[in-house]
Amino acid sequence: MKAKTTAGSGNPPPAFQIHVRVYWEDTDAGGIVFYANYLRFMERARTEWLRSLGHGQEAARQSGGGMFVVSETQVRYLRPARLDDWLTVTVRVVEAGKASMVFDQKVLRGDEVLTEGQIRIGWVQPGPDGFRPGRIPADMLAALTGDPARDHN
Amino acid sequence: MKAKTTAGSGNPPPAFQIHVRVYWEDTDAGGIVFYANYLRFMERARTEWLRSLGHGQEAARQSGGGMFVVSETQVRYLRPARLDDWLTVTVRVVEAGKASMVFDQKVLRGDEVLTEGQIRIGWVQPGPDGFRPGRIPADMLAALTGDPARDHN
Amino acid sequence: MKAKTTAGSGNPPPAFQIHVRVYWEDTDAGGIVFYANYLRFMERARTEWLRSLGHGQEAARQSGGGMFVVSETQVRYLRPARLDDWLTVTVRVVEAGKASMVFDQKVLRGDEVLTEGQIRIGWVQPGPDGFRPGRIPADMLAALTGDPARDHN
Amino acid sequence: MKAKTTAGSGNPPPAFQIHVRVYWEDTDAGGIVFYANYLRFMERARTEWLRSLGHGQEAARQSGGGMFVVSETQVRYLRPARLDDWLTVTVRVVEAGKASMVFDQKVLRGDEVLTEGQIRIGWVQPGPDGFRPGRIPADMLAALTGDPARDHN
Repeated sequence: MKAKTTAGSGNPPPAFQIHVRVYWEDTDAGGIVFYANYLRFMERARTEWLRSLGHGQEAARQSGGGMFVVSETQVRYLRPARLDDWLTVTVRVVEAGKASMVFDQKVLRGDEVLTEGQIRIGWVQPGPDGFRPGRIPADMLAALTGDPARDHN
Repeated sequence: MKAKTTAGSGNPPPAFQIHVRVYWEDTDAGGIVFYANYLRFMERARTEWLRSLGHGQEAARQSGGGMFVVSETQVRYLRPARLDDWLTVTVRVVEAGKASMVFDQKVLRGDEVLTEGQIRIGWVQPGPDGFRPGRIPADMLAALTGDPARDHN
Repeated sequence: MKAKTTAGSGNPPPAFQIHVRVYWEDTDAGGIVFYANYLRFMERARTEWLRSLGHGQEAARQSGGGMFVVSETQVRYLRPARLDDWLTVTVRVVEAGKASMVFDQKVLRGDEVLTEGQIRIGWVQPGPDGFRPGRIPADMLAALTGDPARDHN
Repeated sequence: MKAKTTAGSGNPPPAFQIHVRVYWEDTDAGGIVFYANYLRFMERARTEWLRSLGHGQEAARQSGGGMFVVSETQVRYLRPARLDDWLTVTVRVVEAGKASMVFDQKVLRGDEVLTEGQIRIGWVQPGPDGFRPGRIPADMLAALTGDPARDHN
């Protein structure tokens, strides 16, 4: 995943974070968080970021405006999280194109990085034969990259 | 959940079973299957039963014909299942009405009953304001109750 | 599930609530929250209640002190929750015995009750052949029932 | 993830496959399989492969012999799977070292590749302060790489 376009070059890139509690549902018989569930935590952070910028995904989906889809995930599981842990999940844009974006995300317990991932997402919109790839709506792209000029694209 | 109408009265009721393997994804930090996941195992059995009778749910859903929804679940967790267990999941109709059905389901390891539940399902179909309750299609009802006469209701 | 002992008779029973956001991970192809996931939301509320009372479950588990297990769930799914919904999950003790407790729980969107359940839990502790049923620790029971006298039982 | 050692050089590498049905539990409100769940399908294939070679993971875990942990996943989601789909999940060793292995895995519907991933796993075993990284047991490594000589390492 090489960045075609670096978001916010020259400026610190926009970033966001949420907190997540680990519950029984997140763990497995190894006594730790089941690795696939970190993808859930990371998606919660992206979703809350969008929401904080005024973009609810259900409204867009129900109005037929399309939705984000995840096209690639690359995750390294460094240290395990456990039941009751209070985690921080960060998200930062590392690539922003018209058809896809890449986010750098980390899951931390205090200062300790437990998991880090790069998540590529695209956009699909309803077509005659189901959903098909399309351009990310300009206002969402602008909001996530912190580039106000893009609002007018 | 009292049965209004007993399916197949006078005859042994129709029944079905599948086998399910327990994987890491099904377990929790207690070293056993996370209790909510037995509802998944039970649904797999109902789905495979429908399929074996010629009723795929995705086709019905995509053709706008409606879908089953679960309206009530009552489950007793008697003994825990563990990673690698090979389980049997049974399903039997205990009540069949035009608007809802109740299934009796068990999860067993060998002859040992681990979990037993009663699951009530209804039917919803697309309306002007989203899905609304409707009658279970007669052919599905007939197939599940083993009552050919119901095809003509 | 008949109550053997009514908690806090004569006083309003102790109660607790949390808020839960619905994410993609919680939904299914019907466009609504997958019904089994309401059990997860309900457990999060019980867990946070215990935590608010000073009882972390991971600490108890790792110190060999035992853990709660769910022995029975009875849930009615009245109205569907959807992606992006902001839900309230309540929990209230309706039965408190030495070996098991029953909680009444509701999932609401605003004032609208979407799901209601009764959840029975027991306690297990390590024995020579794995976990075995035991008495709920008196301090946990007292904390959840708001009955300080029980500390001395 | 570059391969340090190519398993079965000169010979076709060992490979394995299973079939997986898509159920409601696997889907999300987009009407397709929730992407994180492909990691579950891939793990089921690895687990069944181990089992077919005589290695049950629960037995190893309970006997204190250690367990596999996933340390890195790289997955590309090419086309969506849907409710009722009957999928094939393949697994092939692409790297086999003493401390970690990499598997190449695909999820297909018929001949169509829906998802492809590279999954790196390591081995952990009980230590005085919890699990710590260790060498993959020689018999498991030999079995997965199809190299009988390794049995005697």
